Amino acid sequence: MPQTRKPRDKSVLKPWPLVQRPGFLIRRLHQIHTALFQEACASFDVTPLQYSLLSALAGRGVTDQTSLAANIAQDRTTTTGALKRLEARKLVERLVDGEDRRARACRLTSAGAALLSKLEAPARDAHRTTISCLNKKDQALFIAMMQRIVADRATSGLDSIAEE
Amino acid sequence: MPQTRKPRDKSVLKPWPLVQRPGFLIRRLHQIHTALFQEACASFDVTPLQYSLLSALAGRGVTDQTSLAANIAQDRTTTTGALKRLEARKLVERLVDGEDRRARACRLTSAGAALLSKLEAPARDAHRTTISCLNKKDQALFIAMMQRIVADRATSGLDSIAEE
Repeated sequence: MPQTRKPRDKSVLKPWPLVQRPGFLIRRLHQIHTALFQEACASFDVTPLQYSLLSALAGRGVTDQTSLAANIAQDRTTTTGALKRLEARKLVERLVDGEDRRARACRLTSAGAALLSKLEAPARDAHRTTISCLNKKDQALFIAMMQRIVADRATSGLDSIAEE
Repeated sequence: MPQTRKPRDKSVLKPWPLVQRPGFLIRRLHQIHTALFQEACASFDVTPLQYSLLSALAGRGVTDQTSLAANIAQDRTTTTGALKRLEARKLVERLVDGEDRRARACRLTSAGAALLSKLEAPARDAHRTTISCLNKKDQALFIAMMQRIVADRATSGLDSIAEE
């Protein structure tokens, strides 16, 4: 006698809870880090992306916007927007180059360097606190795994996310 | 004879390359996942957040916006905005409740359910591909570590990131 049970429709996938999906967890990590960063650095009015920019500029000295964008893994439009906001606050100087506006050079001002030096300790705390519930060994492992994923897709997504 | 070396200024922190900072790596992962998702799901015109919303609605049936926001780990404003965009495309219905507009109930329409069923396979692929450079054991470990961080800060950052 044939079974009366309805055959399972193979086009219907099993439920997959959000908290098991890599992308959902990554979005939550990003939210968590951003919230910790904003909390730690509220008095400086700087986003995580702007902090990356200031850090990169401090390391590079005078640099062109294209190299800087690659350095902080953002597209040029986002980088230019963030630079303009920092320039309006006199934290960054953008040097005029008659030939190619997009390649124009930029550097930290002394006010930018001063802000960065005050910002460093709380900003680094926020980065460390983000993964502080893991023990030291797991933190190192977690960072190494993230680095592998990022290295594997060196240029993926550079133009997909606007500045927070 | 005293050393002539300049004493190290302890207020100056050692350089910390971006690719060693947890928050920078997390931002890159978020960019990478979003780019993979957009690539896989381009023909559906749905963001990762909207996919979370559609999935959550499919699992919950009729639900109020507040519970839904908690479910997808977003603040109510972001959730309402995303719902409105899905409603405008007739993928979601928001039911009128005279008493409390913010608590109003919502559910998937049949068009929403149909879109979700077509979206599921490519969306899941994008989630899996995000961490596919790790071997299976490391993928499980990486997900478990992300879950620990997320569970440790259950409500952190829910109102800090707008919809991509």
